[in-house]
Order: sequence, then C-alpha cells, then structure tokens
Amino acid sequence: MRLYGVGIGPGEPDLLTLRAVNRIREADLVVVPYSSREMTLGAVRDLIAGKEYLLFNLPIRGKKEEYEKLLRRIREYDRVAYVVLGDPAFYSSFYYLASLHPPEEVVPGITSFSWCSALNKTPIVMGIETALIAPVSSGLSLCPKVDVKVLLKGDTENPLFKCGSGYFTTSVVRQGKQG
Amino acid sequence: MRLYGVGIGPGEPDLLTLRAVNRIREADLVVVPYSSREMTLGAVRDLIAGKEYLLFNLPIRGKKEEYEKLLRRIREYDRVAYVVLGDPAFYSSFYYLASLHPPEEVVPGITSFSWCSALNKTPIVMGIETALIAPVSSGLSLCPKVDVKVLLKGDTENPLFKCGSGYFTTSVVRQGKQG
Repeated sequence: MRLYGVGIGPGEPDLLTLRAVNRIREADLVVVPYSSREMTLGAVRDLIAGKEYLLFNLPIRGKKEEYEKLLRRIREYDRVAYVVLGDPAFYSSFYYLASLHPPEEVVPGITSFSWCSALNKTPIVMGIETALIAPVSSGLSLCPKVDVKVLLKGDTENPLFKCGSGYFTTSVVRQGKQG
Repeated sequence: MRLYGVGIGPGEPDLLTLRAVNRIREADLVVVPYSSREMTLGAVRDLIAGKEYLLFNLPIRGKKEEYEKLLRRIREYDRVAYVVLGDPAFYSSFYYLASLHPPEEVVPGITSFSWCSALNKTPIVMGIETALIAPVSSGLSLCPKVDVKVLLKGDTENPLFKCGSGYFTTSVVRQGKQG
C-alpha cells in the first residue's frame, strides 16, 4: 500500500493544488478525518464522486492503537490518499499514521493562515518581521517580542483579522494592538 | 484596472492552486518580480505562453516611487496578475503595490516551509508545539522557548531539514537540536 498525505487547503475546492487533485483522483481509497469531514468533503466532493472513501474518527492524543486499526483496514488498497484540511506540516494527524507506515509522498496545502491573510488582503509579515505560529492555548503568553501571533485551534480577542469558526478558528494578532 | 496578487507556491507547476491557474489565465498582463524570475517563470511558463508579461525589478526597501512607476505602466490593462513566489502573506512585495492600488483579490499560495516539510515528509509542528517564522537574520536569537524555528531568506547551520538555495533557502530548526 502506497500512502499519500494530501493537504487540501482551507476547504474551498479551487484552493487545492493541481498535485492534490491528481493524488486524490489516482487514489483507490480516500481517508477523511471525521473531525473535519464537513469542510473536507465540501472541498473534495467532485473529486471523490464514485470513489471509495472512509471516515476516520481521530483518536484523542494520537492514540497509536487506533491508527494501527486504521492501517489494517486500508492495507489491502494500492493507493490511499489521507486528506488533510489545510497543510500536513501544521498539527496534522497524518503524521501519526505516517509513523506506522512510511508515506510515498506528502503534498503540501494552503494553510488556514495564508488563506485568512488573503481573504483579508492583509499580509502576516513584511520586511524583517517575525511571527509565532501556535495553538491559541499555548501561544498567548509565549514570545512577547514577535511582531505577529498566528493563533490556531480556537478563538481569541481583538485580532487584526480572523477566519473560520469554533475549533477551526485562525486569528492573527499584532503585538501591541491586542486587547 | 483590477489587480490580483497571486501566490504560485514554491516553483513547481503542479503546486499552483486551481484558483491561481485561473487568475493567471484570465489576466491581460502578468507581472513577474525580477528577483525570483527564474523560479517564477519555471512554474508558470505554460500558463503565460502567448500572454503579455512584464519583469519588475524590485526596489530595495519597497521604495514607493518604483511602485508608482509600475502602476503607471500597468494601469491601462483590465486584469493584472502580480505573481508571487510562495504565498503573499509572507514577506511579499505585492503588498507595497497593493498599498497604492487596492487589490481585487489575493490568492494564497503554498509557502516555502509547507513545501519543504512535505518534501522531507516531516511535520513542522504537532500537538501543542509552537513555531517561529522569521528571516534568518532576525530569528536566531528571538523566542528561545519555541519548539521550532522556520528561518527564511538565507542559510543556517544544522537544520532539521532545509530546501532551496541562496536567498531562497528555508531552514527548519528544532530548538535544542541546533548547532
């Protein structure tokens, strides 16, 4: 079984890369994490029409047994695309699976913060500025000297801009302009 | 004139999004920053075949006069796509132009660090980890407590992984595993 980790971006069908489209089309099975299933299916609906797909309920804290169980279910397929909302580089469950079965390829995706910046027509950093990328829970108190904080996985107050909702909220905060 | 800031990703033609492909196809004029012209033209060559394009020599420190001069040259076109290597959210000259002429739309792109992480099949952050995004010049001494430093625009020693060359090098360094 060849395993592909495919970033599909923020949830809009035309924000997939050409490579992501191809890898999903070529797959015999598409694995969709259950937590993001609505946004994920909304983005890839046309691509997986008529194709076999599997909703995968993400275990809390990446519990290894559940990924082993998943692996046993998908092992007999030739090409499996595990689709990831956003980009696999940032906080993706894909790498728990990849630690058990070396991936054939990882396809990068548009991150939520790149998307949110574009929607707001406002850059995250310019010149020699610096940015912290963090879950909202661990990022508020860290790195007081960075210019910008990009806070994922939850809401924050007085952002420069924000996008998404609930757990999928991304906020960009300029230091000194906060709360 | 309607101005589009279009992220084209790290330089591989199939890492453009469908939206980026469309915006470039629809443009009457494509502006290509001179500094990244080889990588940029390599990525969009098929899309701009037969299309009018303009190489733009980026002024040092975003000198306003040069962007005003550019604006006078492109003003008579209906749709202008200013293509950006990587993603407009991070250190892009596009926003100097956009400060003089409000853009119609900004299209996000695959960042160099998402690409580099995918190439190396290694995530940047997992769980509740944090990352600093910084130019190599300002990032080495900042934020000693982050888990990962993503250093752009130049080389650094002993990275977890790195991609690109010269000015376009992106290095990802795990704190405590450095030098």
